[in-house]
Amino acid sequence: MPEIRKDPVFGRWVIIASERGLRPNEFRPGAGSDGKSYVCPFCPGNEALTPPAIYSLPADDGSWRLRVVRNKYPALVSEGEQGSTRNGIYDRMDGMGFHEVVIETPEHGRLLEDLPEEGVADVLKTFAFRVRELKKDPRIKYVMIFKNHGRNAGASLLHPHSQIISMPMAPLRAMQEIEGAADYHDERGTCVFCDIVKEEKAFGRRVVGENADFLAVAPYASRFSFETWILPKAHASHFEELPDAMAGSLAGILKASLRKLSVSLPDLSYNLIVHTMPVQDPSAEHYHWHIEIMPKLSHVAGFEWGTGFYINTVPPEEAADILNAGKRYKV
Amino acid sequence: MPEIRKDPVFGRWVIIASERGLRPNEFRPGAGSDGKSYVCPFCPGNEALTPPAIYSLPADDGSWRLRVVRNKYPALVSEGEQGSTRNGIYDRMDGMGFHEVVIETPEHGRLLEDLPEEGVADVLKTFAFRVRELKKDPRIKYVMIFKNHGRNAGASLLHPHSQIISMPMAPLRAMQEIEGAADYHDERGTCVFCDIVKEEKAFGRRVVGENADFLAVAPYASRFSFETWILPKAHASHFEELPDAMAGSLAGILKASLRKLSVSLPDLSYNLIVHTMPVQDPSAEHYHWHIEIMPKLSHVAGFEWGTGFYINTVPPEEAADILNAGKRYKV
Repeated sequence: MPEIRKDPVFGRWVIIASERGLRPNEFRPGAGSDGKSYVCPFCPGNEALTPPAIYSLPADDGSWRLRVVRNKYPALVSEGEQGSTRNGIYDRMDGMGFHEVVIETPEHGRLLEDLPEEGVADVLKTFAFRVRELKKDPRIKYVMIFKNHGRNAGASLLHPHSQIISMPMAPLRAMQEIEGAADYHDERGTCVFCDIVKEEKAFGRRVVGENADFLAVAPYASRFSFETWILPKAHASHFEELPDAMAGSLAGILKASLRKLSVSLPDLSYNLIVHTMPVQDPSAEHYHWHIEIMPKLSHVAGFEWGTGFYINTVPPEEAADILNAGKRYKV
Repeated sequence: MPEIRKDPVFGRWVIIASERGLRPNEFRPGAGSDGKSYVCPFCPGNEALTPPAIYSLPADDGSWRLRVVRNKYPALVSEGEQGSTRNGIYDRMDGMGFHEVVIETPEHGRLLEDLPEEGVADVLKTFAFRVRELKKDPRIKYVMIFKNHGRNAGASLLHPHSQIISMPMAPLRAMQEIEGAADYHDERGTCVFCDIVKEEKAFGRRVVGENADFLAVAPYASRFSFETWILPKAHASHFEELPDAMAGSLAGILKASLRKLSVSLPDLSYNLIVHTMPVQDPSAEHYHWHIEIMPKLSHVAGFEWGTGFYINTVPPEEAADILNAGKRYKV
């Protein structure tokens, strides 16, 4: 069973999941070139290669257009005791939780941003629906929704998919973000994300997309070149409370943002993460869910790792100019 | 001039350094294959391709065996005002600081761990000496010493080198580490790193090296497979106060640790970071400098990025067994 261990200095949690080392990697040197051709477990016809569907949406022809399955090589599993135990100076927990995969489309080579808007909206509605289901289990404190696209972003399979990991504690970085926002609220009486929306709309130059409900920006202190955030204009703490009626406009701005990134950065790799409130916590005036897209243009060097201090060689104002002009960026 | 921007939510600092985007990358697809052969700026005979040496050690034949130069594509520069200014909801500073490169050997294809012990000790003594010099500038609050080896670790040049970045503030992650250690000290009255040394020596299974002055371990909550820490046995907050007499034993355990990693992980990429106290701060009972080596076996996926929550597929006890047996690990 996976184990969750706490670093005694930072308090950060690490999942030690040896089974996950066995998962297939389509990008591994030699995969598919050993005489056996590679079989994609996410393609139609290969459903037997994944655990059974937890949820799916039907296509017109009776097959599926989206499937949610348990991850076959999970980081966390449904069994296990709750609560941590101390072992000398160290704390540990059973690796209890859920790890699901959202197969976004039956088409192996399609990109998320090239699905029709309704297809992207289906993916987003599915995220919200799964979180609402998963949070019914009171052991689950946080649900992380993320997508790794491309080899540089750590994806091990090409077929378009996202992941949903439900865990028994809120991760340190999420708590630090929420605490930082609470400090800002204590000091100024406003939500920092609402203020970012206001400031960026007024300044304009870092805006890369806007519609009735959402704003897409190159954030002021971008850690990564071409980093892009999508913020709801109206204050809301929990992503999973996204009204179905807003899924279309979120899909629209997400599609447009990813398209701009793909045009400027051919063969783009990225990580997309939904930042949201711990699922059992009430809404808060200081915290506002949002999506962060982090393009991975080059390998992240040691400086970033040791310090939480990043070096970015493309100022966000220039990144926004390039994206908005549809220019190609030479990496 | 580079600019340092503060994220309004986290308080993390990001360096925006467009000039650094121009630096050569030996690993870039096509480098050296465009008809012009690649010229290494760190090789003997090419000294004119780097800024002049700040410091160097002579070889027996009158040439150099180690050189320190200013980084030609610096993340921070020596000019600029101190102190931050506010712009609406955002804070910024001039990108003031120093960015130096330590060229560890004249030999282009040599690995640090294959230098003689005295050669590695020279590198470590040079690190400490440079920090002692750099901290004479009262504007400098933190000095980060790190080494990126191999393409997966973000290195842009093959020739063995390390980097020293001196900055006008302590980075967030360093402060969080020191605060975590202070909390531990408040609670238990001991230094968490001294306790790790004691606990790991008693347990034994995560130890990967030991000599009179240092212990090398696979840390309990390893974020990365085969992560390795080198801890001084005696409490000390500041790396730069390393007595010259201990540089040999630090070189010995560093060489041995990197060798074990290279044997088990052929074609190893890693980041090495010296974790130490802000240079203007006094020694503290709760903080203990150490070295962290993070092998980069695969790309780091989104989950880690968003959360400060890591998934590691090799338990540190198994990593230590593999390293100590000199077995090859199949990635």
